[in-house]
Amino acid sequence: MRAVVTRGQQLSVEEMPTPNPGPGEALVKTLACGICGSDLHVLRHAGRMADASRRSGGAFRLDPAREFVMGHEFCAEVVDYGPDTPRRFAPGTRVCAMPLLLTSRGLEAVGYSNDVPGGYGQYMRLLAPLLLEVPNGLATEHAALTEPMAVGLHAVAKARLAADDVALVIGCGPVGLAVIAALKLRGVAPIVAADFSPRRRALALEMGADVVVDPGERSPYASFQEAAVYADPATAPPQPPWMPGPPLRPQVLFECVGVPGVIQQLLEGAARDARIVVVGVCLERDAIEPFFGIDKELNLQFVLGYTPEEFAATLQHIAEGRIRVAPLVTGRTGLDGVADAFAALASPEQHAKILVEPWRG
Amino acid sequence: MRAVVTRGQQLSVEEMPTPNPGPGEALVKTLACGICGSDLHVLRHAGRMADASRRSGGAFRLDPAREFVMGHEFCAEVVDYGPDTPRRFAPGTRVCAMPLLLTSRGLEAVGYSNDVPGGYGQYMRLLAPLLLEVPNGLATEHAALTEPMAVGLHAVAKARLAADDVALVIGCGPVGLAVIAALKLRGVAPIVAADFSPRRRALALEMGADVVVDPGERSPYASFQEAAVYADPATAPPQPPWMPGPPLRPQVLFECVGVPGVIQQLLEGAARDARIVVVGVCLERDAIEPFFGIDKELNLQFVLGYTPEEFAATLQHIAEGRIRVAPLVTGRTGLDGVADAFAALASPEQHAKILVEPWRG
Repeated sequence: MRAVVTRGQQLSVEEMPTPNPGPGEALVKTLACGICGSDLHVLRHAGRMADASRRSGGAFRLDPAREFVMGHEFCAEVVDYGPDTPRRFAPGTRVCAMPLLLTSRGLEAVGYSNDVPGGYGQYMRLLAPLLLEVPNGLATEHAALTEPMAVGLHAVAKARLAADDVALVIGCGPVGLAVIAALKLRGVAPIVAADFSPRRRALALEMGADVVVDPGERSPYASFQEAAVYADPATAPPQPPWMPGPPLRPQVLFECVGVPGVIQQLLEGAARDARIVVVGVCLERDAIEPFFGIDKELNLQFVLGYTPEEFAATLQHIAEGRIRVAPLVTGRTGLDGVADAFAALASPEQHAKILVEPWRG
Repeated sequence: MRAVVTRGQQLSVEEMPTPNPGPGEALVKTLACGICGSDLHVLRHAGRMADASRRSGGAFRLDPAREFVMGHEFCAEVVDYGPDTPRRFAPGTRVCAMPLLLTSRGLEAVGYSNDVPGGYGQYMRLLAPLLLEVPNGLATEHAALTEPMAVGLHAVAKARLAADDVALVIGCGPVGLAVIAALKLRGVAPIVAADFSPRRRALALEMGADVVVDPGERSPYASFQEAAVYADPATAPPQPPWMPGPPLRPQVLFECVGVPGVIQQLLEGAARDARIVVVGVCLERDAIEPFFGIDKELNLQFVLGYTPEEFAATLQHIAEGRIRVAPLVTGRTGLDGVADAFAALASPEQHAKILVEPWRG
């Protein structure tokens, strides 16, 4: 098969053996696969990810010295099954799946493994029990967004939402946009979203943000604290007389950037008792001043991925129009264009999500 | 009155005006006041605390260039009341209270304010509505432990304890010991506690720890993960077959040291889904690697202080013997011995809590 191979910080289209499904596995044909921000990061810093994951005991056991095929946000078509595997879906059925395989080493991340090629190749092995049929009529390019949107659904599920919550999303790349969609789905309002890019702020509004802020012009935290004031003070819970300022609604803030310094910004910008959900994946050391957290009794919830239930629910939400992903797909490419697509994604103005279509001519 | 005044990193016993209670305030005579680890820190680094608090919007508005009287862990005796103040308790009544005063600037921390002398002085102004009568028969020296023990009760309340939780306490100074007592009260078991000091480990056992670890000899996290294994595997929730090792009980870890580096240790040592409660007050910048939190979906809850309800409940727990504070009181001194007591507290082997008795000859 043809695949985009990552080797020594380079992407190249190569011929490689078609994967051979083992027991419990399905062989699928990749129809579309999104390029994830983490893929851009791993292209340059695979060693950093491998090292961090090894030290934290995680499932990303990538040897950056060896080649691998990325791609973990896909919609595919069933081709065949491995031995002794129930043939749940007929060949030709379109499916989505969590990008996980089970090997003798334990769980393996499809797309971040030297041994399990991901969706930048024409075929993949997937765990057969994880396959979910794409509901009839849902476009392949939208079904492929299930994985990144599930990240948002999970982050919001881990936020322990309370009635009256007001939300701030820092960073409106695909992760931030997925969080906004999931917040909207849960009825949280207002949702304040911040990004330096006008294009991304426009997408944030399309996905359900109520207020967007350009941090180059104004502090997102100032806007957020304004938005957190009870519109009707009569509905606010009683507040001790010595508390300065108007009563503020409970706050949940989402870190969707993943670079050093942002967590500290959130510790500084959050009001007392706020919950901060760290969704951006920062692989570097970061500096914080714990006293900001202590003095305001903040809560930091780190999150990663999603549960099988959340993944399945996300596919349904997309299929039934409750999460509208159409605005996010801003480009498509065949395998030969992947390297260019990686370069284009470096600028937030041009693209949100580019889909790789390995069978495109 | 006589008081121990902090000025330019020095403690000296001086004569100063007896405080004059305003409306809503009581004048009390300090019977006993504990020396808090934060007092030791503030003696050397008052500027750091003032700066951190100012930037985080907190209530510690200390001007380190001016003198102040520390002491916020006290038992006192009612002397008089300010104008227009209900005389809830007769003069001579022994009381405890949260160390807070309300001034035109808002809440003021008794003992960390240039304008409100704390318990290292013979008299204090306190907020009259906050006074709690010491239940009949409770020794003054034990009632004075209400404040530090309330810190532990609050930290445990914020930990969102679940059934089956196993707890690790890093650092067995007064804060860690208070957390251990509160965990014991809630029936959490086993409680694993770690400290380099043999004396503190012995106190940890007295306060209710089930396992104590010397980090110089063995990783507390390794001991903790062993203690987290279900004694009866039949009672463990189902675990996916690919999860390595035996099923582990849900985990809550308490940071009770408050120096840079410990939060990262906890991020590394905690198992998946653990809650980490940061009780130690670190006033410096700290370095973390967020990926450890992300990969294991850890939760960090920063805490400070206690609620009025928790403070009152703690006094009752002590009075009724549910929290046994006797082992913690390891020394007493008059005002003239406070500077020496600060020096002695630098060594964990000698003392846990030294009480200042301002009327002691």
